Amino acid sequence: MGKIADRIYACEPWRIVENTWKRENSLVGESIFSLANEYMGFRDYAEEGADARSLIGTYFGGVYEWAPAAGPGGYRGIIKRPHHMVCAADFFFTRLEVGGERVRLTDDARDFERFLDLRSGLVHRAYTAPLSGDNALKVAFDRILCMDAYRCAVQRITLCAKRDTQAQITLGVDGTVIHQSEGRCQWTQTAQARDALRYGVRFVTETTDQTVEYLFRVDTDKAADVQAADNGVTLAFALKAGEPVVIERRMINTVDPEGEIDLGALDSAQTFEEALAQNTAHWADFWRVSDVEIAGDALNQQGIRYCLFQLHQTYRGLDGHHNIGAKGLTGEAYGGQAFWDSETYCLPYYLFNDRQAAKSLVAYRYHTLPQARERAKELDCKGACYPIATINGFESCNLWQHASLQMQPSTAVAHAIMAYTDLTGDEDFLFHEGIEMLVEISRYVVSRGGWNSDHTGFGFWGVMGPDEFHMMVNNDYYTNYMGGKTLKDTLSVLARVEDPDRWSTKEERQEWKEIAEHIIVHETESGVFEQHDGFFTLPHLDIHSIPTEEFPLYEHWSYDRIYRTDMIKQPAVLMAMFLHPEDFTDAQVEANYDFYEPRCIHESSLSPSIHAILAQRLGRDQAAADFFSFATRLDLDNYNRNTTEGLHLTSIAAAWVTIVFGFGGLHADKGTVCLAPHLPEGWDSYSFRFLAGDGVVLAHVDKAGVSLSMLQGTGAKVKLFGEWKEIRA
Amino acid sequence: MGKIADRIYACEPWRIVENTWKRENSLVGESIFSLANEYMGFRDYAEEGADARSLIGTYFGGVYEWAPAAGPGGYRGIIKRPHHMVCAADFFFTRLEVGGERVRLTDDARDFERFLDLRSGLVHRAYTAPLSGDNALKVAFDRILCMDAYRCAVQRITLCAKRDTQAQITLGVDGTVIHQSEGRCQWTQTAQARDALRYGVRFVTETTDQTVEYLFRVDTDKAADVQAADNGVTLAFALKAGEPVVIERRMINTVDPEGEIDLGALDSAQTFEEALAQNTAHWADFWRVSDVEIAGDALNQQGIRYCLFQLHQTYRGLDGHHNIGAKGLTGEAYGGQAFWDSETYCLPYYLFNDRQAAKSLVAYRYHTLPQARERAKELDCKGACYPIATINGFESCNLWQHASLQMQPSTAVAHAIMAYTDLTGDEDFLFHEGIEMLVEISRYVVSRGGWNSDHTGFGFWGVMGPDEFHMMVNNDYYTNYMGGKTLKDTLSVLARVEDPDRWSTKEERQEWKEIAEHIIVHETESGVFEQHDGFFTLPHLDIHSIPTEEFPLYEHWSYDRIYRTDMIKQPAVLMAMFLHPEDFTDAQVEANYDFYEPRCIHESSLSPSIHAILAQRLGRDQAAADFFSFATRLDLDNYNRNTTEGLHLTSIAAAWVTIVFGFGGLHADKGTVCLAPHLPEGWDSYSFRFLAGDGVVLAHVDKAGVSLSMLQGTGAKVKLFGEWKEIRA
Repeated sequence: MGKIADRIYACEPWRIVENTWKRENSLVGESIFSLANEYMGFRDYAEEGADARSLIGTYFGGVYEWAPAAGPGGYRGIIKRPHHMVCAADFFFTRLEVGGERVRLTDDARDFERFLDLRSGLVHRAYTAPLSGDNALKVAFDRILCMDAYRCAVQRITLCAKRDTQAQITLGVDGTVIHQSEGRCQWTQTAQARDALRYGVRFVTETTDQTVEYLFRVDTDKAADVQAADNGVTLAFALKAGEPVVIERRMINTVDPEGEIDLGALDSAQTFEEALAQNTAHWADFWRVSDVEIAGDALNQQGIRYCLFQLHQTYRGLDGHHNIGAKGLTGEAYGGQAFWDSETYCLPYYLFNDRQAAKSLVAYRYHTLPQARERAKELDCKGACYPIATINGFESCNLWQHASLQMQPSTAVAHAIMAYTDLTGDEDFLFHEGIEMLVEISRYVVSRGGWNSDHTGFGFWGVMGPDEFHMMVNNDYYTNYMGGKTLKDTLSVLARVEDPDRWSTKEERQEWKEIAEHIIVHETESGVFEQHDGFFTLPHLDIHSIPTEEFPLYEHWSYDRIYRTDMIKQPAVLMAMFLHPEDFTDAQVEANYDFYEPRCIHESSLSPSIHAILAQRLGRDQAAADFFSFATRLDLDNYNRNTTEGLHLTSIAAAWVTIVFGFGGLHADKGTVCLAPHLPEGWDSYSFRFLAGDGVVLAHVDKAGVSLSMLQGTGAKVKLFGEWKEIRA
Repeated sequence: MGKIADRIYACEPWRIVENTWKRENSLVGESIFSLANEYMGFRDYAEEGADARSLIGTYFGGVYEWAPAAGPGGYRGIIKRPHHMVCAADFFFTRLEVGGERVRLTDDARDFERFLDLRSGLVHRAYTAPLSGDNALKVAFDRILCMDAYRCAVQRITLCAKRDTQAQITLGVDGTVIHQSEGRCQWTQTAQARDALRYGVRFVTETTDQTVEYLFRVDTDKAADVQAADNGVTLAFALKAGEPVVIERRMINTVDPEGEIDLGALDSAQTFEEALAQNTAHWADFWRVSDVEIAGDALNQQGIRYCLFQLHQTYRGLDGHHNIGAKGLTGEAYGGQAFWDSETYCLPYYLFNDRQAAKSLVAYRYHTLPQARERAKELDCKGACYPIATINGFESCNLWQHASLQMQPSTAVAHAIMAYTDLTGDEDFLFHEGIEMLVEISRYVVSRGGWNSDHTGFGFWGVMGPDEFHMMVNNDYYTNYMGGKTLKDTLSVLARVEDPDRWSTKEERQEWKEIAEHIIVHETESGVFEQHDGFFTLPHLDIHSIPTEEFPLYEHWSYDRIYRTDMIKQPAVLMAMFLHPEDFTDAQVEANYDFYEPRCIHESSLSPSIHAILAQRLGRDQAAADFFSFATRLDLDNYNRNTTEGLHLTSIAAAWVTIVFGFGGLHADKGTVCLAPHLPEGWDSYSFRFLAGDGVVLAHVDKAGVSLSMLQGTGAKVKLFGEWKEIRA
């Protein structure tokens, strides 16, 4: 696959450190040092300005704009109006003049340093800017985004000049930032308030009537002349040689605020030190129950902690109306949309780390059930069809081949309901929200499928399975398997309620049973499942014959060309085996792995992890290690050369899944937690935490074997290498 | 199929007559009474204005605009910039005031009459407009578009008032006409000239830098005050009760004129009477060699003559750089694009009626070979790939599923080269232009296909065949058959030249031979060819179960829904049997007709004719009659309710094909003209003309049998019912 690390950052166990400013790394650094807390997020652009490419990006979860509507005409069921997470105001906006000279980050900066502290969420950036007349300014910018008081952030700026001089600093909120993929700013200012060192402003979106309020107060340890600036406050003061001045900005940002702007709300805003202390406590709690420790592999140690940090700060189920965008809150790519990755890659992590977040992810789909019902109607189907890409629950993908042919978002929701309720025993959710969704998804599944011509089998025709290199096929194995699974799961849940007729008629259930028993599957004598009708006859392409420079294929090949060989983009049959390991024998896994892996080019960042996990199951350590090799550092080492656009948030979840499901052999078989840990070559030991029983289990794996202990709670029962094992505190 | 005639026009053998003005018929009438001469064409909108919906449409062959380019990004091979035939200036622009009142066509008009005379191309429109004070105006508008002096047209306006009054008439060229599908006018005026009763103006397109010059002179039999109008000339004169005044406008319109505007060119412009006489002679020549006479069926008699009239006036190969748009020069629909209908439906007509036109159609593809080569490259293929829709030779269809997956435009060109040269013996064309195209198309075909996984067969993967209800399939029968045919034809032509290596290497020819011998075909024991891999297993849909109000399906069904059953839109396997009847036994035709016909909903206006012709071959007279029932009157009776948008020019060709190929059993087997005429029930007799030998043969068919005679030329040898027959003058 020929991916090459672009090693920019120093390797430390608890920090990401950048020691040199290189303008060509500007966009990658903005992404890597992003902060978020689910409510909001921002890239680490230089707030004072930089002589380099920049994507000034601040985002609020669930704040979006509709794209201009497509013109009249067009085919039914094709999305005419996508939506996207909109870039908000630059609330770190800072303009600095010292001795009459503008100070910003340029190639002349000396002693540049930036780090992210994973134990506190502090981002620190400092450098020395040369000034004329043998003067120089040491400047530091620190950012804290509060994890608990999630509407709050603090900016601290420290200035220290070599010689006496005058300084002037403007702190503002810039509501004119361009949303780059739209080419324009989509906000209108609706209110403003000021009061010496306090400032407030509100902006409203164009199409969704969502308002964001930004409040800040400035505190400084130095007397200063204060003046109103257009978009904030300007301070002027003398800088004494060698005497640092600290300016602190405490911010409160609110989506859809009530009443008038109230600057008084700032009275209780945390100071920088208070915010830092509270964040440090928050992250200590997190690491205690979610850390993964790796001894003997510093790069992966740093990598997995970075992934866990990003995952937790991006989503923890604060709000059941949010989901996880493919790029989180770190950039415009994918329009802030959430995909079925949420259920298939992120949910496994949350199920074993944060049940509140897991429930919120599933609840999000319940909140958006009305939109899914509407979508099913647009597609001439019954029940509920979940979108392939969305923020607000409506389908946002205007490529019909994805939006109309991919059934996997819907079957993934059914899978998530079962995975969540099986593991947590949350029957209240299952028998209220869950059952309603399951029944509606089953209706969609059945209405989207059909019996074959001689009525011997039921299948799905004209679909695109997880392997997007086969665009419109019949009886995609994954789609058929998950469709059948959805019907069986729904029937099993209906069998457990007293009044199944409240949800579904007897005739309907009989039809579903009949269909579930006749789902079309083609399996060879050697146990290989045909990925879809006719796959085995497709022209063979030796994927190693493709020149490296032709990747990514979507950018270099004619669109239709990728669809007509046995090359696959990402696992489809193997994906079913990842989601339901208990349904397949080792021999089946082996036969399918050996058939499909050589045909897979992994043109999805989510593909290698599935292969790593199945390779582990087959005892293929080298293959597993190869597929794992850049899982934890996909963004830190910019393997795909597009970390510029934002972080691969859902792949970050796959990094955890690869270690804990792959090396740790963790999975849930219905309600039972199963483990089969294995120590990868080159590691001295590793340990991971997971929720089980009434608390948190710590698994430590080293050459001597596996030890399990309770970190929290009184006890848990798990299956270790297939044997029941009881763990007590 | 439930199509219902909307009988608006009186039935006469040589005229189309409208006797009543109904505003709801305004757009249909504009289309029906369109005039064209290949160089230009115009709808019969009321030039004086009408109180009704109107599509003021004038068009020049090959004059087009590029659409705005799509933004950056997007997939390779997908068309970013379509083009469309642009609506030109209204050069019949007329504004009439009588007694200070504006005269235009309203619901108050009395004694309305409009007719098209098929023997002269005269369109006459007249009515009486009530005026205040018990006055009234009889007004007549006559139009002639010259067939020979094809840049010229003449408008004649006759006014006659009931009582003495004053009249004022402005004759102009309105360059501000909106191109309706773009929502704006795309012309800019570049020059203007005037001289008492003469006027000239030029407009240029926005994106293609094409200029059209419009010159006119006004002649009248009544002294008038002449004034310059903004866009022409205004005449004021007295109208005496009962004394008609005739105003004549002679026009010369020129695409890309040279030099300055020269009003002097108008000196030699034909008068109305001269133009009428010349057109009458032109059409007399045409009917003598191309008429189809039907005794005992007045509706079809009128219908087929109307079709022949439209076909000849739209295209006769004046210019090898033009082609035949799906709507000819009669409206904006389909953007003026030509499709593969040109080769498959229109060419058969021209081959037997007008060899110059037939050659021009094929030569058009040679002129656009460079564009086809470029297109193949965009698709990562070799050779030349012809566009599915084009004016200028570049692919204009921005739906990739059509533009990238349909190989039939290219194989249709190969077929056309063979059909044209086999029948005409034009070896000069074959061994120069033809061979170059055949070799390039063969290269495209081979590079677009592939060997199946076990290398036992060669096929085409990820294609859309003629049946557009199966969008992305493998080994579409028609595509495979025509692909193999193309290779065999190319090899046979290469075998006839002295220096085949000049065109193709021996290795390449060997590969083509190998492939042609291994084209994948699935045929059942009963002789049914599977339309594509897996077609036989598709869910069955009883097409009669679809409610009538759901047609057309593209407008009422979710886009993806039409693609997943065994319902077909139009013939695919049967299409191959239409193009190559000699390759299939009657038993094969019967087996496939019986399998596919019940699955076909004919959602293409070109579909019924194929079925009518094959039904004839099978001796199924009733079925043939049913499929023929609206072939000749598709537009005259507005069966598809969209004649408003323009005429179905390529379906018009199919009407002739249905009669002459179907009832007449005419076809060419290589160079041999074969006939097997049959008298349809209800007809007393019919006769048709076709080119054969060194002249034109007249075939007369009645209950007594078939008689063949030479209309022009000295003799011809044809096969009648399989037996050689010599006809002599």
